[in-house]
Amino acid sequence: MTAVLDSLAQGRQAIMPAMRAALDRLDPATRSISHYHLGWTDLDGNPASAGGKAVRPALALLSAEAAGAPPETGLPGAVAVELVHNFSLLHDDLMDGDTERRHRPTVWAVKGAASAILTGDAMLSLAQEVLLDVDGPGGVAAARLLTEATGELIRGQVLDVQFESRDDVSLDECLDMAAGKTGALLSASSAIGAVLAGAPQRTVDALAGFGADIGLAFQLVDDVLGIWGEPSVTGKSVYSDLRARKKSLPVTYTVTHGGALGRELSEWLARPETPGEESVRGVAEKIDQAGGRKWALDEAYRRMAAGRLKLEEADIPGRAREELLSLAQFIVTREA
Amino acid sequence: MTAVLDSLAQGRQAIMPAMRAALDRLDPATRSISHYHLGWTDLDGNPASAGGKAVRPALALLSAEAAGAPPETGLPGAVAVELVHNFSLLHDDLMDGDTERRHRPTVWAVKGAASAILTGDAMLSLAQEVLLDVDGPGGVAAARLLTEATGELIRGQVLDVQFESRDDVSLDECLDMAAGKTGALLSASSAIGAVLAGAPQRTVDALAGFGADIGLAFQLVDDVLGIWGEPSVTGKSVYSDLRARKKSLPVTYTVTHGGALGRELSEWLARPETPGEESVRGVAEKIDQAGGRKWALDEAYRRMAAGRLKLEEADIPGRAREELLSLAQFIVTREA
Repeated sequence: MTAVLDSLAQGRQAIMPAMRAALDRLDPATRSISHYHLGWTDLDGNPASAGGKAVRPALALLSAEAAGAPPETGLPGAVAVELVHNFSLLHDDLMDGDTERRHRPTVWAVKGAASAILTGDAMLSLAQEVLLDVDGPGGVAAARLLTEATGELIRGQVLDVQFESRDDVSLDECLDMAAGKTGALLSASSAIGAVLAGAPQRTVDALAGFGADIGLAFQLVDDVLGIWGEPSVTGKSVYSDLRARKKSLPVTYTVTHGGALGRELSEWLARPETPGEESVRGVAEKIDQAGGRKWALDEAYRRMAAGRLKLEEADIPGRAREELLSLAQFIVTREA
Repeated sequence: MTAVLDSLAQGRQAIMPAMRAALDRLDPATRSISHYHLGWTDLDGNPASAGGKAVRPALALLSAEAAGAPPETGLPGAVAVELVHNFSLLHDDLMDGDTERRHRPTVWAVKGAASAILTGDAMLSLAQEVLLDVDGPGGVAAARLLTEATGELIRGQVLDVQFESRDDVSLDECLDMAAGKTGALLSASSAIGAVLAGAPQRTVDALAGFGADIGLAFQLVDDVLGIWGEPSVTGKSVYSDLRARKKSLPVTYTVTHGGALGRELSEWLARPETPGEESVRGVAEKIDQAGGRKWALDEAYRRMAAGRLKLEEADIPGRAREELLSLAQFIVTREA
């Protein structure tokens, strides 16, 4: 675990100069909001250190190594996927009305809706620019990969919003939504370095498949942490996803496969009033009893195993494979 | 004028199948919101005909002809610029709180903020996808051109939002904002067909310069129509931009060059209360008296003349040049 945290920290450091150079292309106001959102500065512009895990850039750099290239080959991809990820966070926080992320106020909450919308738009556009600036066919292929993943990510978000007003969401629909919302960008992150390195399609496909699998594992664990995560570690309030009556994967599993407990949960989700503390705790226990938590964690492990198989069948240097697998392991065992 | 309207209508027809095919890649919900936003359907999904002028696609098709290629060569560019334009409208309407566009409710007003954000995001991402799908180097060069223009467009929007809370905006700053908000995409529209056709840089630059000029002319006329336009034609309420105390170009000209009348206007803009009908009418008259309206229209003609010069100095077939100039003429004399 320490090794993974080191490797994530190294990845964050490695992409810093390129990320900073990319953001320097933005107008000063948007740039400084980006720095705040990324956790590089506080609200007054003073240096801070409150960034995310940066799993996606780490995958992008390892993806280049998986194709036998130096990690630097994946750098523009690492920057681009991190930009797309943060574009989606900026817009999501606004749409979900979330006022905190990583223990700090979200951009829309302190700078207004327009700032969150425009900074997100700017990051999305910048991601393409970074890839199209790469010389050679790898950059164009990477831009294509990323724009398709972005389309999938947005489709996932659209479904997520739709599900809020539906009470008949199937588990397959919910998994499809997660594949779009989370799987697509993790898949692109895992393949983009190899694409930039001009790797054979077989290798790219194996890495993309691995990324899609661990993307789903990531979302399953995220959903478990969104209910049972330790608030001081996750930076979210306790039971936050339940309080918002989110139709997350463990919830949808319980509704669709939980028998009588599922029907109770379904009724509870349909209630109009804001749920009280005890009500939320009771429901969390019911989901646990009905096996929703266990199913989500088991499923995350199954996905991780499927991803591992794809990597093992591909022609990937041992060190890169081991690091990718450690990262996958980290994703399913993390606590925040 | 009738010829221009015909040519705009032809352009709209010409891009329809490609535009529809592009939107077919979106999820059904986002696709149907796009169709509504574009004026192709009403809120129930029934066919409608309430689209915009589609100046940008017309420019993109003519731009290919200006490079000696058939207009179809510009088709992916025409679709892409129209998608980027509509991405920005969807987000702007939400940020500005505008509830009507072209006599119909805006997307956020009927479908909610999340729909406007996500449909805009989807259109922006799709624009890149359309260009990256083009075979050959023209598509990549066009994608680069468009992504830079998109960055500029967003920068212009950021300034526009900033200016709302500033009372010391200079005329140069305001012109710079308009060059970003409107000039950049009209510039890209005027050059993208030539880029797709693989035209020499000289021709591309001339067309891009022409587009930037008529883009500014477009915004100047837009600002005049936003104050003095005929509501039944523009689809906006009378004096709408003044009512919102927008620091548009004629307003900024008057504040900075209008002497005593400018100082009065400046004070009026700083008042906290919503202005009444008479107050707004009086201010519109003052801007007129101070020469703000005349300056804006004169400046629009000057920009158009500058753009014409760039076209005349470039090596462009006569028919394409004439059509581009008619379109420029239309832009400064239009009433909506």
